[in-house]
Amino acid sequence: MMAFIDSKRFIKRLNQINELDPKSSLKGVNRIALTQEDKKARDQICKWMRDLKLKIKIDNIGNIFGFYNFNRNKKPFLLGSHIDSVKNGGRYDGSLGVIGGLEVIQTLIEKDKVDHPIGLAVFTNEEGVRFAPDMMGSWSFIKKENINKIYKIKDNNNVNIKQALKKINYLGKEKQLFFLPKNFIELHIEQGPILYNQKKKIGIVKGVQAITWLKIELFGESNHAGTTPIINRNDPIKIFIKISEYIYSLSNKKNKQLITIGSIKVTPNQINVISNKIEFTVDMRNPNDKLLTNIEMKINKFIKRLCKKENVNFKINKIVNFKSVNFDNKMNQIIKKHSDNLNYSNMYIHSGAGHDAQMLAQICPTTMIFIPSQKGISHHSKEYTKNIDLIKGVNLLYKVTKDLISN
Amino acid sequence: MMAFIDSKRFIKRLNQINELDPKSSLKGVNRIALTQEDKKARDQICKWMRDLKLKIKIDNIGNIFGFYNFNRNKKPFLLGSHIDSVKNGGRYDGSLGVIGGLEVIQTLIEKDKVDHPIGLAVFTNEEGVRFAPDMMGSWSFIKKENINKIYKIKDNNNVNIKQALKKINYLGKEKQLFFLPKNFIELHIEQGPILYNQKKKIGIVKGVQAITWLKIELFGESNHAGTTPIINRNDPIKIFIKISEYIYSLSNKKNKQLITIGSIKVTPNQINVISNKIEFTVDMRNPNDKLLTNIEMKINKFIKRLCKKENVNFKINKIVNFKSVNFDNKMNQIIKKHSDNLNYSNMYIHSGAGHDAQMLAQICPTTMIFIPSQKGISHHSKEYTKNIDLIKGVNLLYKVTKDLISN
Repeated sequence: MMAFIDSKRFIKRLNQINELDPKSSLKGVNRIALTQEDKKARDQICKWMRDLKLKIKIDNIGNIFGFYNFNRNKKPFLLGSHIDSVKNGGRYDGSLGVIGGLEVIQTLIEKDKVDHPIGLAVFTNEEGVRFAPDMMGSWSFIKKENINKIYKIKDNNNVNIKQALKKINYLGKEKQLFFLPKNFIELHIEQGPILYNQKKKIGIVKGVQAITWLKIELFGESNHAGTTPIINRNDPIKIFIKISEYIYSLSNKKNKQLITIGSIKVTPNQINVISNKIEFTVDMRNPNDKLLTNIEMKINKFIKRLCKKENVNFKINKIVNFKSVNFDNKMNQIIKKHSDNLNYSNMYIHSGAGHDAQMLAQICPTTMIFIPSQKGISHHSKEYTKNIDLIKGVNLLYKVTKDLISN
Repeated sequence: MMAFIDSKRFIKRLNQINELDPKSSLKGVNRIALTQEDKKARDQICKWMRDLKLKIKIDNIGNIFGFYNFNRNKKPFLLGSHIDSVKNGGRYDGSLGVIGGLEVIQTLIEKDKVDHPIGLAVFTNEEGVRFAPDMMGSWSFIKKENINKIYKIKDNNNVNIKQALKKINYLGKEKQLFFLPKNFIELHIEQGPILYNQKKKIGIVKGVQAITWLKIELFGESNHAGTTPIINRNDPIKIFIKISEYIYSLSNKKNKQLITIGSIKVTPNQINVISNKIEFTVDMRNPNDKLLTNIEMKINKFIKRLCKKENVNFKINKIVNFKSVNFDNKMNQIIKKHSDNLNYSNMYIHSGAGHDAQMLAQICPTTMIFIPSQKGISHHSKEYTKNIDLIKGVNLLYKVTKDLISN
């Protein structure tokens, strides 16, 4: 395979970032946002940025931007992703887009002597493990929320974002949206099995599917499992079974409708006691906002009708509702062209997970490039992508970036 | 209503036992076995036994027996129950049979000058909250298990039964089955709604239904809820829904088949993660052993067939299996006769809960008398039975005991 980038340097840096913590290779990567592990990786990336004479700017949520040829009059082309991980997370989720972006920028500077402003972004707290919501850095950058409100968000130990940023010395001075990118591209592993199963090397990401999370509570009456006749029972688990059967019947390959009941909590949860409450969650995703809204309405209607009939109290709480995001079609055409030219097998794909790119898409033409995750495993120490596939992703990112900054 | 017993004395003692702990009336009774609260109630009952000149004997599991006219050559007629409670339990579960039995014995001694040996039993740890299994005192008394094995049973703080008995000074010298009762009768609240709903004052207990507890585990594969296509999912919750729907379809009023799924545990139990395991319990009860075995076989067969079809791994653990117990029919005829004579509305009933009487039934003719529980509530601070209904229960116990010791 012909590589335009310096493959060895790229792979070495990726390993270096993931092995800052000596235990990382054994138990997955533990680089929770704004911890000392996060700081170590940030410091290393800043060092590489300085080595490349990039101008480092840190904003008020701790996002790091390294600029080549920073110029107030010309929007920079932006690459990047995040470096925080989930607990026992993988080596590629996030870091690939940062280390790969750095490699592309270095190649453009050193080999191609480009002069177009380019930036490398490292967004804070994409995973949202310690501080919710996820995609916090990019969400703050595009000014979706007042920074002082964001500062009040606390972790489980009552430490707020501002304190955590100060502690690792990454509370920067730049304000939200202190510059506008020309474009943004995020290279990322798929975190799903589609490319792996279809044996494709590249996913051209059409957008991020819409997400709705429901928390549903059904109330009954606790009673002795041995002494309460059937007709005297008000058992919410019976109702749950009917509702969940209906909910799962709505998941649909043709409509790309994904539905997951991932969490169930029963009260009092004792073998010989009829429950008085069951609480469960529904994760629903669809690339099409209308189809998703329609499914949600159907579920609401079914629950209301059934609970009325069975005389059961219920609550439905919508706890997350993200609209779908469409990435830039023109950029995707360019990705398709270079992918074909390089003979990298490719397909259009929707992102099932959320990414910083969906925030950036709201302020500039944006897209993502996916590469395969072996067996679709992600957010796990077994997350794996072959080096040759990683290098193909970075090669393609280089070709596309070079094309886009030249036109 | 004509009372044969001293109703005021009986009600006063019942209140006294339940108000030894000043907080008891507010938050239910907390008389967990072998705690200081249990000790206080035991000491009070022993005092009353001594006042009545009963000969107190304590066995090696802490069961208290107070004998009138104890005589190695004539089996005593035995009354009693337990005084330990669940956490935030009610005022009647257990204590009624002890305080009511004491009242009957006092009346027989003082008013009727009987000379037949009679005993009052206070069985240790019927509830099994702190130390499992439940019905431990009666189970040990009838010698179902070696006492040294029982002594090794520990609570959650690593305290064993022997240590706990010593600590409250109720480790007695009498061996298991140190005497054989002539008969045993346990007066108890129903702990279910049948008498209350049917507006009957007396339940003549035919027996205790058979109980089987299953713990069922279904295994799947954890994956990202947003990135895993439907066809790549191995979601054990989907299988659980089918299984539980089938299980609930087997509960059946006509066959008196009770089924409860009371506890569900999902792993990892996260809103956006497809589960890799669901574990749930099934509590099944039927007065008829064969019908219950048949239901269990059906469930096993259904799970095996479905899991094979869906390629899902599973485990079925039978964690409890009690055969049904039939109480003494002749004693029940005598209860029926006196209940009719007293004009106390009555019905035959099966016990849904376990009781010390089911152990005693294995060594002597035994039965139980139930009185109503308001709304069927039990194991709860709201457990309630009107004084007039309590008194009817004790009156009937008196009549039946007097009849049985005279013949």
